[in-house]
Amino acid sequence: MSFSFEIAATTGAARAGIFSTPHGTVETPAFMPVGTLATVKALDPDDLVQMGASMILGNAYHLHLRPGDEIVREMGGLHRFMRWDRPILTDSGGFQVFSLAQLRTVTEEGVEFQSHIDGSRRFFTPEIVMQIERNLGADVIMQFDHVIAGQSDETSARDASERSIRWLNRCLDEVERLEQTRPLEDSPRVVVAPDTSRNHPRLPLPASRLPRQALFPIVQGGIHAHLRREAAEAIRSMNDWPGFGVGGLSVGEEKDAMYEMIDVVDDALPKTHPRYLMGVGFPDDLIEAIRRGIDLFDCVAPTRMGRNGAVFTRDGRLNIKRTEYRTDPRPLDTECDCSACTRFTRAYIRHLFVSDEILGLRLLSLHNVHFLLSLARNARQAILNGDLDNWSRDWLARYRSASPLAV
Amino acid sequence: MSFSFEIAATTGAARAGIFSTPHGTVETPAFMPVGTLATVKALDPDDLVQMGASMILGNAYHLHLRPGDEIVREMGGLHRFMRWDRPILTDSGGFQVFSLAQLRTVTEEGVEFQSHIDGSRRFFTPEIVMQIERNLGADVIMQFDHVIAGQSDETSARDASERSIRWLNRCLDEVERLEQTRPLEDSPRVVVAPDTSRNHPRLPLPASRLPRQALFPIVQGGIHAHLRREAAEAIRSMNDWPGFGVGGLSVGEEKDAMYEMIDVVDDALPKTHPRYLMGVGFPDDLIEAIRRGIDLFDCVAPTRMGRNGAVFTRDGRLNIKRTEYRTDPRPLDTECDCSACTRFTRAYIRHLFVSDEILGLRLLSLHNVHFLLSLARNARQAILNGDLDNWSRDWLARYRSASPLAV
Repeated sequence: MSFSFEIAATTGAARAGIFSTPHGTVETPAFMPVGTLATVKALDPDDLVQMGASMILGNAYHLHLRPGDEIVREMGGLHRFMRWDRPILTDSGGFQVFSLAQLRTVTEEGVEFQSHIDGSRRFFTPEIVMQIERNLGADVIMQFDHVIAGQSDETSARDASERSIRWLNRCLDEVERLEQTRPLEDSPRVVVAPDTSRNHPRLPLPASRLPRQALFPIVQGGIHAHLRREAAEAIRSMNDWPGFGVGGLSVGEEKDAMYEMIDVVDDALPKTHPRYLMGVGFPDDLIEAIRRGIDLFDCVAPTRMGRNGAVFTRDGRLNIKRTEYRTDPRPLDTECDCSACTRFTRAYIRHLFVSDEILGLRLLSLHNVHFLLSLARNARQAILNGDLDNWSRDWLARYRSASPLAV
Repeated sequence: MSFSFEIAATTGAARAGIFSTPHGTVETPAFMPVGTLATVKALDPDDLVQMGASMILGNAYHLHLRPGDEIVREMGGLHRFMRWDRPILTDSGGFQVFSLAQLRTVTEEGVEFQSHIDGSRRFFTPEIVMQIERNLGADVIMQFDHVIAGQSDETSARDASERSIRWLNRCLDEVERLEQTRPLEDSPRVVVAPDTSRNHPRLPLPASRLPRQALFPIVQGGIHAHLRREAAEAIRSMNDWPGFGVGGLSVGEEKDAMYEMIDVVDDALPKTHPRYLMGVGFPDDLIEAIRRGIDLFDCVAPTRMGRNGAVFTRDGRLNIKRTEYRTDPRPLDTECDCSACTRFTRAYIRHLFVSDEILGLRLLSLHNVHFLLSLARNARQAILNGDLDNWSRDWLARYRSASPLAV
């Protein structure tokens, strides 16, 4: 089948799983590097393969504006366009419409907004966004949702969550319509096989037009536990989804509130399906969320922070621009086996960074992405070993005990 | 021996040679990618190894200002600092002092100038520059010279050329003093062996302090043939040099004048030693100069142009930013085997470029540097095959017949 999720081991709520897609499998928990504009910033696809990345992200909002989803389709879809033959997930652009775009007007129909690139007027509806994600052709596509600030009051949170659920229904209808009328191009590694994981009750699909994209709903509800539960309930009653997104966290709320919401969602969603915590990717959050039953993560932090000189290490964060690293002969992280740490000193990377050399951006991005990929892999191994509690306690203690001076 | 030059085949003035250094050999003719600040801009050392680069450049002026040559020395020298265990050549900074720095005052003693980074006052003398290049520890170090504009009149050209020769004498004295007082650190691939190629008459060196750096003089003289001849003569009478730089070309003069000067210098320099044409690296200039007896080249063009969207191809230059490449499924150059051309379409690279994605800079730099490395390799093969005349005629005809629209 095209999509499936198998659980190999559990420790409390945490799971070591295998998520199968038409472009291969993802061993979970997994961190997914973010390739917003069809490239993980400052990295080469070969770097990502070398680091063992499996699924990466693209973004519907950004790729619709540049180069245009129709162009990506014409070039054979996102996999071929960016030369990534492993799984891809596209975010719907809901977050970007509500954070990047200007002068937006939200109605039940959709969102009118101005492009942050050229100010042109655009209109996103659930249907239009599904068409965009169809053109991009990722394995997993996220629903178009109404995203609000992390500490929004209950009225706003309920309004956005309920609208997101109505939009989900329209997304699902549109995906089905597109499957009928606009089949995806074949791509070399796409295996067309009956999709039993997405046992949709409404419409038996003809054999030649089986869905090869998995639509993930997004559970919203802000920091209000009962809204999260209601959203999960409503979403589950609509369809047998191949997996679930958890949205609207790590957007300004307290960490404790985020962890509490993850607990609530873990309870409210089926244990049998993958859960993707959107936009979360700091090392300690990754571990806390894995312990609470999350399988998939993405975050721009490792590359964005890398471009600002910030480096993840087992002993907390450091900033490579500091003068103290001027002649430091150590690697960024003394225990890391990434291709930056096995080759270069802090002194050299600091020099590159201070001199605005592109290699500096590349090496820090490479290290930070590798750090999170490797962290999720190690957590998975700890689950398989039945040792997650000890492993995560030790890891977090060391990470959090770092001198504040080093941050 | 540490440095030697063997000639395997010739066609007219052109030579296929092997230049040996303490960090390995360079098959000539060769293009040397420029790593001004201890990094070839936008590339990883692994990329350069994959492309078959042998010798690369660093720059004394830039590395003195950032991170400081004393720091590079403390970090084990340039080879270790930037993880390049093949040969390195450092330019003296003469060109930069006379092109980048501000408010310079030239006296017989040296040049006082303001750093282009922070405006700080600096003073370069031949002795100071040799100390900087000693700290950097490259295999080949260039003399400190007085560089002038390409079309300078004879009086200025003579003045600068004669001063450069007096400075060369001071460079040589200082290099000898440094060899006595400040031996280079050992580095893993440095082989300490008697240097018979640089049979210097003045001072027998003790076995433990053999020179492991080759000082190259620079033949100046603008576009005045007799000045070039006089300079070559004066330089040859001073020492048995391990090789020769040819400077002050490709700095604004007519192409024909440049080619004529190369012919003059070819005649005036010993056939037995490598000749390095400084700062020249456009594809047609490379071929014209190889035909005239040049062995080594460097140029920032492939990376600098790459960062502006310009691409070398066998059919002339193209600019990837043009709208016509928006859905072009072809590689940058249809016959190129670099890792950009074997993976990505023009459409994708254009998208990266238009979106200011770092991968775009990397791929264009990678392609352009590979293009020149490969061009020099192919010229070498043509010399070995005895087929240089046909090969170069065909290559230049195709390159120059490109439609002006494509440039």
